[in-house]
Amino acid sequence: MEFRIVGENVPRKDAVAKVTGKARYTRDMGMPNMLYGKVLRSSITHGRIKSMDIHKAESLKGVVKVLTPFNTKCHNFPTAGHPYNLDPNHQDIADRNVLTDWVRFYGDEIAAVIAEDEFSAKKALKMIDVVYEELPFYLDPEEALKEGATEIHEGSKNVVGHNRFTLGDIDIEEAFDQADFVYEEVLEVKPVQHCQMENQVAYAYVEGNGRLVVVTSTQIPHIVRRILSSALNMPVGNIRVIKPIIGGGFGNKQDLVLEPLVAMMTLAVNGRPVLLDMEREECITSTRTRHGARFYMKTGLRKDGRIIAKQLKVYGNGGAYAAHGHAVIGKMGGDFYRLYPAEKAVEYESYTAYTNCSVAGAMRAYGTPQITFAFEAHMDNIALEMDIDPLVLREKNMVQKGFVDQLTGVPILTCGLPEIISKGKEYIDWDKKRKQYSAQTGDKRRGVGFALFGYRTSTYPVCLEIGGARIVMNQDGSVQLQMGATEIGQGAATVFSQMAAETIGIPYEMVHFEEFTDTDVVPFDPGAYASRQCYVSGKAVRKAATEVREKILKRASGMLKIQQFALDVQDGNIIRADNGEVLCHVGKIALDAFYNRTDADTITADVTEVSDTNCIAFGGCVAEVEVDIPTGRVEIMKVLNIHDSGKIINPVLAEGQVHGGMSMGLGYALSEVMLYNEKTGAPRNNNLLDYKLPTLMDTPRLDVLFVGENDPTAPYGNKALGEPPAVPSAPAIRNAILHATGVKVNKLPMNPQTLFEYFCAAGLI
Amino acid sequence: MEFRIVGENVPRKDAVAKVTGKARYTRDMGMPNMLYGKVLRSSITHGRIKSMDIHKAESLKGVVKVLTPFNTKCHNFPTAGHPYNLDPNHQDIADRNVLTDWVRFYGDEIAAVIAEDEFSAKKALKMIDVVYEELPFYLDPEEALKEGATEIHEGSKNVVGHNRFTLGDIDIEEAFDQADFVYEEVLEVKPVQHCQMENQVAYAYVEGNGRLVVVTSTQIPHIVRRILSSALNMPVGNIRVIKPIIGGGFGNKQDLVLEPLVAMMTLAVNGRPVLLDMEREECITSTRTRHGARFYMKTGLRKDGRIIAKQLKVYGNGGAYAAHGHAVIGKMGGDFYRLYPAEKAVEYESYTAYTNCSVAGAMRAYGTPQITFAFEAHMDNIALEMDIDPLVLREKNMVQKGFVDQLTGVPILTCGLPEIISKGKEYIDWDKKRKQYSAQTGDKRRGVGFALFGYRTSTYPVCLEIGGARIVMNQDGSVQLQMGATEIGQGAATVFSQMAAETIGIPYEMVHFEEFTDTDVVPFDPGAYASRQCYVSGKAVRKAATEVREKILKRASGMLKIQQFALDVQDGNIIRADNGEVLCHVGKIALDAFYNRTDADTITADVTEVSDTNCIAFGGCVAEVEVDIPTGRVEIMKVLNIHDSGKIINPVLAEGQVHGGMSMGLGYALSEVMLYNEKTGAPRNNNLLDYKLPTLMDTPRLDVLFVGENDPTAPYGNKALGEPPAVPSAPAIRNAILHATGVKVNKLPMNPQTLFEYFCAAGLI
Repeated sequence: MEFRIVGENVPRKDAVAKVTGKARYTRDMGMPNMLYGKVLRSSITHGRIKSMDIHKAESLKGVVKVLTPFNTKCHNFPTAGHPYNLDPNHQDIADRNVLTDWVRFYGDEIAAVIAEDEFSAKKALKMIDVVYEELPFYLDPEEALKEGATEIHEGSKNVVGHNRFTLGDIDIEEAFDQADFVYEEVLEVKPVQHCQMENQVAYAYVEGNGRLVVVTSTQIPHIVRRILSSALNMPVGNIRVIKPIIGGGFGNKQDLVLEPLVAMMTLAVNGRPVLLDMEREECITSTRTRHGARFYMKTGLRKDGRIIAKQLKVYGNGGAYAAHGHAVIGKMGGDFYRLYPAEKAVEYESYTAYTNCSVAGAMRAYGTPQITFAFEAHMDNIALEMDIDPLVLREKNMVQKGFVDQLTGVPILTCGLPEIISKGKEYIDWDKKRKQYSAQTGDKRRGVGFALFGYRTSTYPVCLEIGGARIVMNQDGSVQLQMGATEIGQGAATVFSQMAAETIGIPYEMVHFEEFTDTDVVPFDPGAYASRQCYVSGKAVRKAATEVREKILKRASGMLKIQQFALDVQDGNIIRADNGEVLCHVGKIALDAFYNRTDADTITADVTEVSDTNCIAFGGCVAEVEVDIPTGRVEIMKVLNIHDSGKIINPVLAEGQVHGGMSMGLGYALSEVMLYNEKTGAPRNNNLLDYKLPTLMDTPRLDVLFVGENDPTAPYGNKALGEPPAVPSAPAIRNAILHATGVKVNKLPMNPQTLFEYFCAAGLI
Repeated sequence: MEFRIVGENVPRKDAVAKVTGKARYTRDMGMPNMLYGKVLRSSITHGRIKSMDIHKAESLKGVVKVLTPFNTKCHNFPTAGHPYNLDPNHQDIADRNVLTDWVRFYGDEIAAVIAEDEFSAKKALKMIDVVYEELPFYLDPEEALKEGATEIHEGSKNVVGHNRFTLGDIDIEEAFDQADFVYEEVLEVKPVQHCQMENQVAYAYVEGNGRLVVVTSTQIPHIVRRILSSALNMPVGNIRVIKPIIGGGFGNKQDLVLEPLVAMMTLAVNGRPVLLDMEREECITSTRTRHGARFYMKTGLRKDGRIIAKQLKVYGNGGAYAAHGHAVIGKMGGDFYRLYPAEKAVEYESYTAYTNCSVAGAMRAYGTPQITFAFEAHMDNIALEMDIDPLVLREKNMVQKGFVDQLTGVPILTCGLPEIISKGKEYIDWDKKRKQYSAQTGDKRRGVGFALFGYRTSTYPVCLEIGGARIVMNQDGSVQLQMGATEIGQGAATVFSQMAAETIGIPYEMVHFEEFTDTDVVPFDPGAYASRQCYVSGKAVRKAATEVREKILKRASGMLKIQQFALDVQDGNIIRADNGEVLCHVGKIALDAFYNRTDADTITADVTEVSDTNCIAFGGCVAEVEVDIPTGRVEIMKVLNIHDSGKIINPVLAEGQVHGGMSMGLGYALSEVMLYNEKTGAPRNNNLLDYKLPTLMDTPRLDVLFVGENDPTAPYGNKALGEPPAVPSAPAIRNAILHATGVKVNKLPMNPQTLFEYFCAAGLI
């Protein structure tokens, strides 16, 4: 497959807008006569509201309305940005309302003020008196699941979801019995937060025709529309959702956090526009987090290092509401099973528990960073115990091209793992350094570590995968590309434009893509998640662009009196297919399509495409670290992410995407964690001073390498790349620390405090 | 043809928005950081600018930039909202630039200020010093066309356009020789102005991606986009035009008046938003007017009253720029020829002249009110001279069903003229009153008058007629209807929604129509003019809706396991075609189309339709007046418009449309005229105090009647209705005055001054 534009480093469609400040984000929009909303959040962690006095707040000048759980209620709704399922058994848990009198976490939404200005709204919040009745709370999933624990949602037994599967011909215990070596341990990861640049923000109003409009910084406008419809009991056609330019999401905005409330707010004031935005503190505590989890992992191997039995039990911390339900923790089973298939038996069991932590939801790579940390740490621990090179252990066990996933029936047609290992070893000088750093003493010790992963592109076959694209040709031969798939900063506008340009045969600059996503306008597409868009929505682009290209060629054939098969479109010209002779500009064909007196018919395509394949993007990280034993400080000397994401549509953008993912991975590895006061359940670090997001000063040089071949199931050979970069850094660094110190650090983050504890326990300090 | 929703008085889509003030017009939009533009207009009527000093203006605080003809120029452009023609010989005259140093009328655009606020901009205008060199000017077309007249446009000889045709087997002079009775006279109409509620207004900015956005109160967003592209030499795809809700147009906004200048303004300030709006004075003088014209008319008849020869020479006053060129005056030939075809010979010749009046352009019914006034007055004058009842004269000569237009080849398949006459006679008690008022004396005299007309629906076959429609079904079975055809207050959103609902089989409320027209979004359609949209764009709606209906039925057939032909869609339900049994709601089919795991495919249609037919909407007005001879005041005692516009899609809306047209016609008849100072060429009444637009106090009860049958060429039996109501009032009232007084008033307006002069000349005063 030869490409002319796909694979090129064309500039981002929004580059100039963003660097000149012209890009219009939700907060840059707004409307005349707009009101401001602010939310009162609970100051306890679990309990009931006995009474709430809003009289003082209501009588404050500038306050228009105060909403409480007692005067404002819609239908209970789910919040997950999942594609809808017609089967009620596969629908998300509707455990939310806009305001609650049953407080389930510190920061839960218990009242809201609508005021003429932001200042009055904030002032009014302090004038609302609340009397609570407190209940016991749980910050740990296993605590919440204990027999007799107080229920956080009535009748739930604090189970959000549970799944279990076994694979193999023999029972797992029998398989362990056959193993030469069995290794068992517990690993743990803690909740972290997305900290995307732009906090959640939305405004809403009712048009004169009665239709509700919600302008929101979301990854999933069409899903927002559908969920609002059921929450408000309003026909979906009466709702319009518009996504302006957005300052990051990472899954935080794959959930309905503000939209139902802001919609209720405007409805409460007769449709006047109301803006609701979040401060950073609110965004950290009261939106979504990455699930914490505890992993009980057991693996049996033959003495040659082949894995024959694998067992994993996971307890995920779902936080106070279901949000994405059991999907994140449940999905780990596939990752666990697939990367290193066991010869004889696999058993996976997992629980997502309600706790009184902040609500967990989608976050870049959706469970895969957690399970990859656990499993890749486990692999290095086994290698250490069995005295095998950890890469040799991996090579003996890792999945290969041709493997068919027993859970999904989907075959793996491309797999770059061997190349990832060889390129990674070469980069870090693996064999030499593994030896060189094998017996260090002193305060500063170095080590190298490696981690691999696989990541499924799109949600197929778990969910329906459908994408839409509409292409309308302008009089100059340029096209408008309209899509429901969303640009959320990842570069979707750019790469979709490359795809359309590639297939139609026009220059990239001739594709116009509107970054604002308006559900009234764009074709249906559920949105940005699961690294699905380039793959699924990309198929729709290819289909629509092919249709446009055919229409161009048909008209050109008539105009030029040359048979259609003898013509081609390239670089915006109609050419002779055989010798490349330029016959005319595509604009001439377009103009004729608009204005031919006998034969006008504008050139457009409006398509839907269902994707019934998936493919696995593979990757790895290799890192060299220097650990300062007394302080627990880890310095990254070298770090490389290697990705097999199939065809890379735009290498420079892809590299940027990987840099961002690595930065996120480094934070996950070394510093980030949401802390709660064990006694009160209150957040302890819900601000960017205390929540240790890596800054530029903390960030080493980030190296990136792409390997692999075009995947035949993909529209342009491409596999997932949006989320994978965030996956492998933490386990690679963890394994490098193991190599440097011999200490098995089995939990995240590996911040100085954690390392100090581990090093003390190991006798290094 | 049975209709369920077409023909019903469903409420306007924008009714609530408009009465509650929620409707968002261009001036209600705007942007942060927006600048204000103001235009300096010439204070002479014809001449050259010798020098212009902008230093003082530029140094005023708040002024960002001053544009002059010397520092700001784009490609010369035409301004007419005509569909584009690929043949350069049929393209509009490009005689405009944004600012001019050759002043051609009093109010011409010679400089522009861009400032931080409106006040500074206006203040700066007064600080620009201009030195002119004056040239002779012409307010009358025949004066301007005289040999040796100073040219207003170089090389033009002051001819904007000229056409001539003859029909019949014998020469016109030979035909007149064969006539028993020949009548010859001169008639005249003066320029008037649209006075639409919302003055012209637009703002523009450049997006971060470099694309130009123009938000404008226009009837023709797609044409604005194309013309801006050629004026600015910018690819059409780089331009986006958005039409918000608009407060009337009547043809005034079928021309590019502000858009090229506001585009140049934003480009001059690095893409910052600039707003340019007009005050009423500017709008009256410096936008467009209805062409004035002088008619040299000669008719030969047999003594039985049959017309055998007709001759007409028209001199149209085009004003200072070509705008719509010769199209308005040229089109009169068809109206002249068609309504009362002559047996033996027809000769039509016409000129549009450049003059130094305000620029003439499109105005509701595009020449037909002028020629209808002239010809219908002429008919009553002939009837008087021949002592025939004027309706008998008409019945002997008027066109009939089956007539084929020799100019276009288009047959007339429906014609309501006989019914119009009979219903009109009945309404006014014609026969009785014609006798009763035949010999009055005294100051107050009464009369009844009648006028007929025909109006061609759409521009076919003169121009390409193409319409587009896109329908996207929502999950609830409701649809988004997207069209390039524009709602400009006439009710397009409502009637298109009725059409779509009718054809799909869903309730009207389930069709959502966005009034904002965004060229980036909507299918191509040239816009609102020529009463074309319900007819031409209506065909596109029908086509798209049929496609959607078929897709619904196909999916329903699969889901219900019933053959497709046995199913129907009605009132939003899938029903059994034979017995009407309701099987399920269409929303169930839609939901399946979105979310079926194996077979999802959203239900949409995106179509273009070329219309290669036209039809003639007929109509008439009958009025009874009381004339006060000494004061020249005319009171309308009764007035009825009768329209054969085929199927009436929404009778209440249609009646409103007719009321507006009648009001416009009454103003044209009795009071409206643009006055110029003969010595300076300056406008004398460019404000709503001195320009005598009829107020509610001047308006009698307006009666409306619809007659006629469904036209088979139309999508829903409908013929033109937007413009026709403005046509017949003036000649009907004029003929009633003739009946009352015996005085042939051969010019408009018939205001007290005109009537005083005529009555003096006739010896009545």
